Amino acid sequence: MPQGRPPVVPDDGLTTRQRRNRPLLVVHTGDGKGKSTAAFGLALRSWNQGWSIGVFQFVKSAKWRIGEQTVLERLGDLHRDTGEGGPVEWHKMGAGWSWSRKPGSESDHAAEAAEGWAEIKRRLAAQTHDLLVLDEFTYPMQWGWVDVEDVVETIANRPGRQHVVVTGRRAHPRLLQTADLVTEMTKVRHPMDVGQKGQRGIEW
Amino acid sequence: MPQGRPPVVPDDGLTTRQRRNRPLLVVHTGDGKGKSTAAFGLALRSWNQGWSIGVFQFVKSAKWRIGEQTVLERLGDLHRDTGEGGPVEWHKMGAGWSWSRKPGSESDHAAEAAEGWAEIKRRLAAQTHDLLVLDEFTYPMQWGWVDVEDVVETIANRPGRQHVVVTGRRAHPRLLQTADLVTEMTKVRHPMDVGQKGQRGIEW
Repeated sequence: MPQGRPPVVPDDGLTTRQRRNRPLLVVHTGDGKGKSTAAFGLALRSWNQGWSIGVFQFVKSAKWRIGEQTVLERLGDLHRDTGEGGPVEWHKMGAGWSWSRKPGSESDHAAEAAEGWAEIKRRLAAQTHDLLVLDEFTYPMQWGWVDVEDVVETIANRPGRQHVVVTGRRAHPRLLQTADLVTEMTKVRHPMDVGQKGQRGIEW
Repeated sequence: MPQGRPPVVPDDGLTTRQRRNRPLLVVHTGDGKGKSTAAFGLALRSWNQGWSIGVFQFVKSAKWRIGEQTVLERLGDLHRDTGEGGPVEWHKMGAGWSWSRKPGSESDHAAEAAEGWAEIKRRLAAQTHDLLVLDEFTYPMQWGWVDVEDVVETIANRPGRQHVVVTGRRAHPRLLQTADLVTEMTKVRHPMDVGQKGQRGIEW
């Protein structure tokens, strides 16, 4: 289907098919809107391919539940019930990660972020998912809650065919260096500039 | 839920709630990836709110079917069968718009684009949808297939509470001027630069 012809064909000994199917590290960064939304849009495509999807949201409060979670989890149910699409797991920091079922403490975000990354590392090693969305993961990286080199090395050397999408502002230069695809979302105009606050169905 | 405080509170006589709920014209432009993907991610949120969604894809070939169409139409079926979420209509230029059921001629894209816009205009007047995604609509605007002033005036003066999202590169300055929210997606790095072509589940 795609008609694109790459400007450079590398001398890497791979066939076009092998090269095409290399797993990607995708980064959505910048101050504009659409970083997470585009990542969840990508998850739609993955679901349609029957891929296993793991979303890990590094948000401070798990009370905030966005529409995408409801819909993607619904698609995960659909997979379980009818076999359509792929399975979906959605995990949020903030009130304790869902796999650990430990009630989180609002004050220990650093420990929670480290715990989240440790689980992602285990899953990458086990090749649990085909697509992993690490939503707003640039912040724990920036704040030193996880070790940047550990993250970059682990993702760069992950086994098999796992696509990883990282979203968030101010992505670390080492992450950008390692990424296959980087899009910067730049704010040109936002309703909040003229006094309009976020609204249901648009912002969440 | 959202904690944002707008930097300016305008003297427009509206309450915060009235201002918050104003319908938006959103433009995703720029050369980077994620313009359409983020628009379809937004459609997920809208579906979850029970909104009626209309997608109008200004693509030259209707043979190209992206994963998002399959999934969003599936969500539309789910609404029809169970009442969950909202209804979804997905229309594509290229082989004749689905509502007209006229077989399209590959050579008359300009007429098809004009026909698509005429239908969108009728729907805006009738307030058929809560969210309209005009995917890749910047191109017919750029190529003179639709009248830019007509588009801008019609959208600016649309009745009721209809959100409109326009995607595509090189958005017309008049459209940007009218938009409430503009995000530019900038390519920082793309696998095609190093000879990797698009792949299933990621690009479509």
